[in-house]
Amino acid sequence: MNSQSGGDLRAFFEPSSIAVIGSLREWGGLGYTVIKNIRQFNFTGRVYPINPSSNEAFGLKVYRDVGAVQDPIDLAIVITPTKTVSGIIEQCAQKGVKAAIIVSDGFAETGESGARLQRELVKIGQRTGLRIVGPNTIGTLNTDNGLVTNPYFISYDKILKGNIAYCSQSGIVGAQGQPLKDQAYPISKMCDLGNKCDVNEVDLLNYLSQDPQTRVIVMHIEDIKDGHKFINTVRKVVARKPVLLLKPGRTERGAKASASHTGSLSGSERIYNAAFRQAGAIRLNTWREFWEIPRVFVNQPLPKGNRIAIITITGGVGVASVDTAEECGLAVADFSPVTVNRLSRLSPQLASNPVDVGPIIPTLDNPWPVLEETIAAVLDDPNVDCVTATLYISSGEEIPVYMDIFDRLMKNITKPVSIWIYGTDLGAMQELLRKLQERGLPAYLDIELAIKSLAVAAYYFKVKSNLDLD
Amino acid sequence: MNSQSGGDLRAFFEPSSIAVIGSLREWGGLGYTVIKNIRQFNFTGRVYPINPSSNEAFGLKVYRDVGAVQDPIDLAIVITPTKTVSGIIEQCAQKGVKAAIIVSDGFAETGESGARLQRELVKIGQRTGLRIVGPNTIGTLNTDNGLVTNPYFISYDKILKGNIAYCSQSGIVGAQGQPLKDQAYPISKMCDLGNKCDVNEVDLLNYLSQDPQTRVIVMHIEDIKDGHKFINTVRKVVARKPVLLLKPGRTERGAKASASHTGSLSGSERIYNAAFRQAGAIRLNTWREFWEIPRVFVNQPLPKGNRIAIITITGGVGVASVDTAEECGLAVADFSPVTVNRLSRLSPQLASNPVDVGPIIPTLDNPWPVLEETIAAVLDDPNVDCVTATLYISSGEEIPVYMDIFDRLMKNITKPVSIWIYGTDLGAMQELLRKLQERGLPAYLDIELAIKSLAVAAYYFKVKSNLDLD
Repeated sequence: MNSQSGGDLRAFFEPSSIAVIGSLREWGGLGYTVIKNIRQFNFTGRVYPINPSSNEAFGLKVYRDVGAVQDPIDLAIVITPTKTVSGIIEQCAQKGVKAAIIVSDGFAETGESGARLQRELVKIGQRTGLRIVGPNTIGTLNTDNGLVTNPYFISYDKILKGNIAYCSQSGIVGAQGQPLKDQAYPISKMCDLGNKCDVNEVDLLNYLSQDPQTRVIVMHIEDIKDGHKFINTVRKVVARKPVLLLKPGRTERGAKASASHTGSLSGSERIYNAAFRQAGAIRLNTWREFWEIPRVFVNQPLPKGNRIAIITITGGVGVASVDTAEECGLAVADFSPVTVNRLSRLSPQLASNPVDVGPIIPTLDNPWPVLEETIAAVLDDPNVDCVTATLYISSGEEIPVYMDIFDRLMKNITKPVSIWIYGTDLGAMQELLRKLQERGLPAYLDIELAIKSLAVAAYYFKVKSNLDLD
Repeated sequence: MNSQSGGDLRAFFEPSSIAVIGSLREWGGLGYTVIKNIRQFNFTGRVYPINPSSNEAFGLKVYRDVGAVQDPIDLAIVITPTKTVSGIIEQCAQKGVKAAIIVSDGFAETGESGARLQRELVKIGQRTGLRIVGPNTIGTLNTDNGLVTNPYFISYDKILKGNIAYCSQSGIVGAQGQPLKDQAYPISKMCDLGNKCDVNEVDLLNYLSQDPQTRVIVMHIEDIKDGHKFINTVRKVVARKPVLLLKPGRTERGAKASASHTGSLSGSERIYNAAFRQAGAIRLNTWREFWEIPRVFVNQPLPKGNRIAIITITGGVGVASVDTAEECGLAVADFSPVTVNRLSRLSPQLASNPVDVGPIIPTLDNPWPVLEETIAAVLDDPNVDCVTATLYISSGEEIPVYMDIFDRLMKNITKPVSIWIYGTDLGAMQELLRKLQERGLPAYLDIELAIKSLAVAAYYFKVKSNLDLD
């Protein structure tokens, strides 16, 4: 393995030129699909298709091998039969290619003979300085330059540019496996580490820590190569950016399944938990949390404490929200006398937390100013660190009203707000959800996620404050 | 309070005639909206609008008061100002109305003077035998006869007829607060108990236990009037049908919020937890679980044990699934030699659990028969009690193929299957989801829900078996 720091990974995410080495058979060839995807997302660099038996693909000249390309190549994407890979990697190294993503599978994840082939790759890398992501990976994605190394068909052509880096050890976290467009995840980079024969979670954390496009790092990780180094790196990165971890293999049987999937062993759950906490990482429990919780860090200030105000339109959910808040480490704020006064002027029923605007909304011809003033009042309260607001929607008509309210509220905001949307028309709910999310607001269809996202942000603020004191 | 058993609640759900007492002002009058909703859902009984200042509504004659109606009235829906309610309830009792749903609020939930008004209602009920649901409730819903007592505008006109009874102590669980149509919840009855001045959770459980349309009872409950009686009733009902409970007020602060919302006190979390478990109830943690988990009981056999087979299209999710399964009490099945053989014939890679069909699907021109045979093989295995299958969708094209596969598989099914849908097109994912759900299959967009639903079903089978032995 190379000893260089994370800065070296630039070729994997920011290459000026890439070689795509694989089958160029139309509709089915994996090299063909990679190039198709790259063009679909308007990659800004040069692309060199490599295949000994084609002459032309996508109007581009096809080269017999990487050596035949005159220009320098930053990144090679290798999707050829397992046994051909080490030869091709050797050619790449000789050509001076800086980095290779080995999409091909059949290596350590399949048993001893595959592991032997994988060790050959490692040796070439060590001897020549060529860095490798994979094998057995779908590689990287960068919304800033349109790079996508995914060898599977992607049914959409746009991904929201944003600040979340989604990292994984599985192809599930990829453009071919998620409705990235429909869900409006604001993405900076993505990376599937695959079998991690060279580049591993530590390298990736170091790179993303320096990446100006990335504000929050989320990582699905099954095994950790060097626990001590990983924890030290996380701690260092957490001082700059939040690190959220989804670590399966929690149960003994899960750990066993992980071993057969990636060809490495995962460690003891108890040790991981303690180490993650010590390093200031945030541990996630479900795939939904993996995708959704990071939104809270995208476009909002951190809460400076753990006191939450909950604005609900239903008493029943208010009660459940209090439970969720307390269970994930938030405290229900006691409003200041000024706020109690301000809310009481709207209605005496509104003067306690959770604030249930449900009973008064149906009595008003125009309830929107009351809702807006309620949110503004609790945001202004010095006893409040963060707010969850509830938006009810029964048709598309409320959407522009809600968007206007949040446009005004967000102008001078110093505290984070998360939003829970509920209502009767799933299509309208999802449209409002997407519109709010596209503006960088943490909006959810699950009240528990809306509250937990703030708890995670408050936790991160506390961790960061403590690290700053170190 | 009346001492009659649950059978008495029939008038609340199966009335032949109803009186709607409230404002008939068009677009805004709550009585008007109730009648509008009732007509929208094609209620099969007779409807009598009651209002002293109207003559006609919806082409129906309006009566000055219930006494003016000649025909018998089974159910009165009362949505009038707080102070008028007890007089109207007295009139209903004199008329011989069997049951009243008091939608009006302003009673015990607002403080002592409201509590006093509520006690008046209780006294009338006790003296006359009139049963009351509420006050402060949106009342009942019955998909079998189109009854809906909801005083709020409902933006859709169809609810899937099914076997789940959703009960609550909050208006959030209502047609005006949920996309019941879009989510295809298969509903038999719904009931918001409100302040529970008369009819309470025990009465409701007894009624639903006998209801032939209801196969599973889900209840959101904030406070329990008589803990001992409730637990005994749950235990009795569980012998017939699963009872799933979402009980907020878990934290001290949540309990306090609950008290101010419904005007009663909730008990200690630890005691509830032990008592629920002892009674064989299933405790839910989130609103998403409340709505989604019951689907597993709708149209499938119970698992006869806790051994799960997981069919995945991605190794990473396979590992996470194993964790989820083990954490919620399932065991990952060890396949029998016959199954290992049968799967190996498809591909040697498929012969272990979780079965990851991901690597071989892209290599096949027609992967569907392999997927179907994989599911069939694990369903046939005597070492397998239940199955979670993963369906990937990138466009609407796969939908008819998947529907056909499950039509065939479901024909002679003796074990439950839950389905996790993932993919790249949210619209297509939701269409497939809805189609599978409409056929009574527990299909989800969250793998954790797909697995937990089977764990809940396996737990219920175990509980029921033990109760049967009592």
